[in-house]
Amino acid sequence: MNVDALLTSAGINIFICIILWSLYSILRKQPENVTVYFGRKIIQERMRRDGTFCFERILPSASWIVKAWRTSEEEILAIGGLDAVVFFRIVVFSIRIFSIAAVFCMLLVLPLNYYGQEMIHKEIHAESLDVFTIGNVKQGSQWLWAHCLALYIISVSACILLYSNDAENMYRKIAKHNKLTSVDQICEPCFIQCNFCGGTSNRFKMLKNEPEQFVEKPNLAQLDSDKSEKECAAAFVFFKTRYSAFVVSKILQSSNPMLWVTDMAPEPYDVYWSNLWITYRLLWIRKIATRLGAVIFMVFFLAPVTFVQGLSQLDELQKIFPFLRGILRKKYVSRLVTGYLPSVVLMLFLYTVPPTMMLFSTVEGTISRSGRKKSACRKILYFYILNVFFVSVLSGSVISGPIINKFDIISSPKVMTAQLATAVPAQASFFITYVLTSGWASLSSELLQLFALLCNIFYRFVLCNKDGPSDFTLSFPYHTEVPKLLLFGLLGFTYSILAPLILPLLVVYFSLGYIVYRNQFINVYIMKYESGGLLWPTVHNTTIFSLVVAQIIALCVFGLKKAPVAAGFIVPLVILTLLFNEYCRQRFYPLFRSVSAQELIEMDRKDERHGRMEEIYEQMQSAYCQFSLASNGMYEVEASDHCGAVDGSRAREEVKARSANPTLGVIPLSRIQQATTWISMLLTSQERNLPK
Amino acid sequence: MNVDALLTSAGINIFICIILWSLYSILRKQPENVTVYFGRKIIQERMRRDGTFCFERILPSASWIVKAWRTSEEEILAIGGLDAVVFFRIVVFSIRIFSIAAVFCMLLVLPLNYYGQEMIHKEIHAESLDVFTIGNVKQGSQWLWAHCLALYIISVSACILLYSNDAENMYRKIAKHNKLTSVDQICEPCFIQCNFCGGTSNRFKMLKNEPEQFVEKPNLAQLDSDKSEKECAAAFVFFKTRYSAFVVSKILQSSNPMLWVTDMAPEPYDVYWSNLWITYRLLWIRKIATRLGAVIFMVFFLAPVTFVQGLSQLDELQKIFPFLRGILRKKYVSRLVTGYLPSVVLMLFLYTVPPTMMLFSTVEGTISRSGRKKSACRKILYFYILNVFFVSVLSGSVISGPIINKFDIISSPKVMTAQLATAVPAQASFFITYVLTSGWASLSSELLQLFALLCNIFYRFVLCNKDGPSDFTLSFPYHTEVPKLLLFGLLGFTYSILAPLILPLLVVYFSLGYIVYRNQFINVYIMKYESGGLLWPTVHNTTIFSLVVAQIIALCVFGLKKAPVAAGFIVPLVILTLLFNEYCRQRFYPLFRSVSAQELIEMDRKDERHGRMEEIYEQMQSAYCQFSLASNGMYEVEASDHCGAVDGSRAREEVKARSANPTLGVIPLSRIQQATTWISMLLTSQERNLPK
Repeated sequence: MNVDALLTSAGINIFICIILWSLYSILRKQPENVTVYFGRKIIQERMRRDGTFCFERILPSASWIVKAWRTSEEEILAIGGLDAVVFFRIVVFSIRIFSIAAVFCMLLVLPLNYYGQEMIHKEIHAESLDVFTIGNVKQGSQWLWAHCLALYIISVSACILLYSNDAENMYRKIAKHNKLTSVDQICEPCFIQCNFCGGTSNRFKMLKNEPEQFVEKPNLAQLDSDKSEKECAAAFVFFKTRYSAFVVSKILQSSNPMLWVTDMAPEPYDVYWSNLWITYRLLWIRKIATRLGAVIFMVFFLAPVTFVQGLSQLDELQKIFPFLRGILRKKYVSRLVTGYLPSVVLMLFLYTVPPTMMLFSTVEGTISRSGRKKSACRKILYFYILNVFFVSVLSGSVISGPIINKFDIISSPKVMTAQLATAVPAQASFFITYVLTSGWASLSSELLQLFALLCNIFYRFVLCNKDGPSDFTLSFPYHTEVPKLLLFGLLGFTYSILAPLILPLLVVYFSLGYIVYRNQFINVYIMKYESGGLLWPTVHNTTIFSLVVAQIIALCVFGLKKAPVAAGFIVPLVILTLLFNEYCRQRFYPLFRSVSAQELIEMDRKDERHGRMEEIYEQMQSAYCQFSLASNGMYEVEASDHCGAVDGSRAREEVKARSANPTLGVIPLSRIQQATTWISMLLTSQERNLPK
Repeated sequence: MNVDALLTSAGINIFICIILWSLYSILRKQPENVTVYFGRKIIQERMRRDGTFCFERILPSASWIVKAWRTSEEEILAIGGLDAVVFFRIVVFSIRIFSIAAVFCMLLVLPLNYYGQEMIHKEIHAESLDVFTIGNVKQGSQWLWAHCLALYIISVSACILLYSNDAENMYRKIAKHNKLTSVDQICEPCFIQCNFCGGTSNRFKMLKNEPEQFVEKPNLAQLDSDKSEKECAAAFVFFKTRYSAFVVSKILQSSNPMLWVTDMAPEPYDVYWSNLWITYRLLWIRKIATRLGAVIFMVFFLAPVTFVQGLSQLDELQKIFPFLRGILRKKYVSRLVTGYLPSVVLMLFLYTVPPTMMLFSTVEGTISRSGRKKSACRKILYFYILNVFFVSVLSGSVISGPIINKFDIISSPKVMTAQLATAVPAQASFFITYVLTSGWASLSSELLQLFALLCNIFYRFVLCNKDGPSDFTLSFPYHTEVPKLLLFGLLGFTYSILAPLILPLLVVYFSLGYIVYRNQFINVYIMKYESGGLLWPTVHNTTIFSLVVAQIIALCVFGLKKAPVAAGFIVPLVILTLLFNEYCRQRFYPLFRSVSAQELIEMDRKDERHGRMEEIYEQMQSAYCQFSLASNGMYEVEASDHCGAVDGSRAREEVKARSANPTLGVIPLSRIQQATTWISMLLTSQERNLPK
């Protein structure tokens, strides 16, 4: 691929972007589309629909960009919770680090690559992109030290940004958020209005304030013997204070670890009801099975990825399909096929991944919707790293060999690293176009909400339903967007010194993303549930992983370029990066796993001092109720959105069974709040006796 | 190696065993050696020394064998604690599983191996040992199904034995032991008599029974601000009940996870005082550094192992050292060199491993002596598995190639498995002699306590000190003996179907071990501290690992022998074994990590009902005191025994500093007991300001 092809690709994408963004700015002004583009505002801010026509409605405008830009982090926190803050942290971190990298690498590394060999340069537009990569630097060149230095600068900047603008910041945010919600947001009602779902009165059993052990934990042994014939798979147990609930959730209850399993309950609107009935005895088997399933899915995805890589290598393609030779000789067809088609095809294949992984995560048996999304997010991330990055790199470079060779390469780490060192720079042009197509174009389609728009048109003009579909509101698809950002991060780090041309494209991508996602958070998505920033450890670890991959590839490349001293200087960098990660793990990770006792006790005391216990008691009775959620329409939308319809009759039967089965014993004085509920859930391993 | 050489080796070893065991039975009757052979009895049962001479004293006898045999498990539990029970569980498990394996494999597999190829067999004594291995079965033979069946029988038996005679049993033992110590052993005094070490009276600060949060946890924030200028690296904090202490040890205290780190305190006599001062901030670096150190040590140990393997391959040795050719041609020299010398040399090299690993574990920073031993045990186990098993196997088979090839083999997993499949059966004769020399002979030397005996003789006859050295008492070296047993287990599983001749030798080894170790537990070793059976998870995991290694090697061998269907049948066996392990991990592992709340509360209540609180209060004041232990001579012996002398002056200075520094605030009503102390320790990350 040469500069012309790149410019063609960039041109196509910029053109598409401008068209789509203009289209968006017009479409959003049409009152028919208000459910598509202002789902959140309608529900949460009760925005009125303005039906009057004026000339401005058909002119594109940029006011929404200014609005999105000016939204403060506090507003984002209020709208999208900690998860949204984490999301924008990733975007901001990426913009910062890749701006730094772009400055250094474009000024320092790019010229060295370009003049790396004594050769007669063509005119710049006809120059191959390979000339701008490290592949153009001659062996044993002293200039490789500049690459080494650039990598040091990037790594150190990344660690500093991760630690002091992000890890520490995230931790403060979490601490602050906890305090905020405990003091100020207490009077603010939940936006999901729940009704008491009407069980029999023996559903709640109060335990009197007996000797102090009871305050800390109900007498499980007694309850156990009481109801040995009426065991149920899961129960919510309410406690007087957050601290007590937290303690019970953290410690082992009985000497058979599978008999009483306690854990913090998810937020009421975060409970994934249809997974609650799974007995603990089956959970570990489900976990193993779904992980195996995900791995098998990843391996079988090799086929389309390999095919796509074939497209970017025209000569090989012509060899395999001789009849294409005529068409491919045409100049523009060739440019289109090498510069644009591969990433489009890959993107289309990739659309099947999120639903599949979401299905795996559902079957896995997580009891919270945020947990399910988090688990899917991690699976999709692994998928992207393995199939988009590593397999693209390796299969692209060995497409000419028979398939058996490919496995040989994968099975031997030594061969693989050497292969990586040659293949990664060679695949630079593919990934540059990937950023253009998958990155830029996908942002535009995100903005346009094509699927929702088509649905709306279908309802209005085909079904002649003037109100359109009743509800488009979705929660933000963290499980697809976070892995995407992290994949681009990996590409950025890896190619920063190998092919610096990718960096400005990435900065543009992340900057556009900043605007687009902010706009979408403000207008489109509602926060139905949140994990409380629990995605951050995944983000942190992936960034470190990307850095280390970049360093190891640089090490291999330096080795191949016969610059052993420069390669040797990378080794301490790898070790220091890993040590930094380990330190962060020690310092910050426990906070993401649990809350500190000190904070909990403070929160409990404040509530007691302010006499809020009665209020909390009232809320508690109606909070954990499946039907009030379902009747609100929220639950059903979410379920059908992500993993197929939930069997309503089964769900109803379960709740009936639950209300017929007296639950375990409750002191319902705990409190619900948006980010953190301190309620413990007890899961027994026994199979429930469902009334058939 | 042929049958003759094996018989020579076995003959030498049996002869040595008989000599040493007879010598032992005479030496143990001599009153001068009573401190060597009856250390525990002297200290704990106050055995009198009988000085009268009678004729029986110079005749070997077998009464001690009968005595050792008749000792019940309850007696072992009383003498050596749960750790001793775990140890004998390993021995008994090994005897059982290898007896089963020996019966099946000697009857079913061995004849098939012997008649595996159409060949003229020599006289049995001149037959090569290779004829008895799977290497003798011809390719594509239907008889390989018998091997497959035998492996199934062995795997299933091992899992059943592990689960229903051992994992469950261990768990019951632990539960029972907890109850026992809580109910009955309360009146029994600790055998280490401690004196109050005399700090200033402000060492203990009582917290009054304030609002319920205080019962659960002292107000850390307040304490923190009180003494911000007097921070110390570690403090013992005592609680009113076990349950409270347990809760505090399990949950995160403050929102900076490195500021207040809580953990259960070790038993008073288990505290490793000189590691207490290490700040938590340094602990993770120490852990990483020592692990790296241990890995480097293992890699550098490749040299002697490779050398030893050279000895067992005579032809290669003659090529490398041509001047040896004359000597090596002599029949008996050749038999000695191939059959006996290699394992002796390896054994001598291996003597340097335990002290080195113990040093690593000390530097690592564990605060309990049992934890240090456990960590060393694990390191030594990894060492044995890597260096004795895998490297012996691989280096032995590739000794003829240049060293660079060896790394090639190690770096490619595919090549390595193929290599393993050919090398493991080929190394059978080496490991058979290894069992004879390292196994049988080391048991005899364990019995004879050669080092202590020589010390005694030196004291009595050279220094003319009639009482001998004052104290020989040692605690049992679990860290060397457990890995040894597990290594032999690995050999047994791996070679069970490949070279069944090893199995009867192993059964004999484990049976002798049963007698010898029982005798030693009864007479020699005292229990200074124990981990409470915490070695069991390591044992369990290693056994599963051994099984899986055996299965994978069998799979590779079947593949090489062109029996793909039989190989395919091994795959589900591997999966089932791993699933079984995962189930056990879910079912039993949490119990080894923590105690259940139910049990703790029961114990607390019983104590309260029986009015034992005052008594416990008394004990508490003097329990955690470094000097009373040192003055008893125990601490110094242990310290110098394992990791070099402890700097007494520094230790003293620390305690002074500690007593000058008012510790953190205590309600000292908790109770000490032999197996389980429920006292929490707080480590702050701040550097202590030691008065200089």
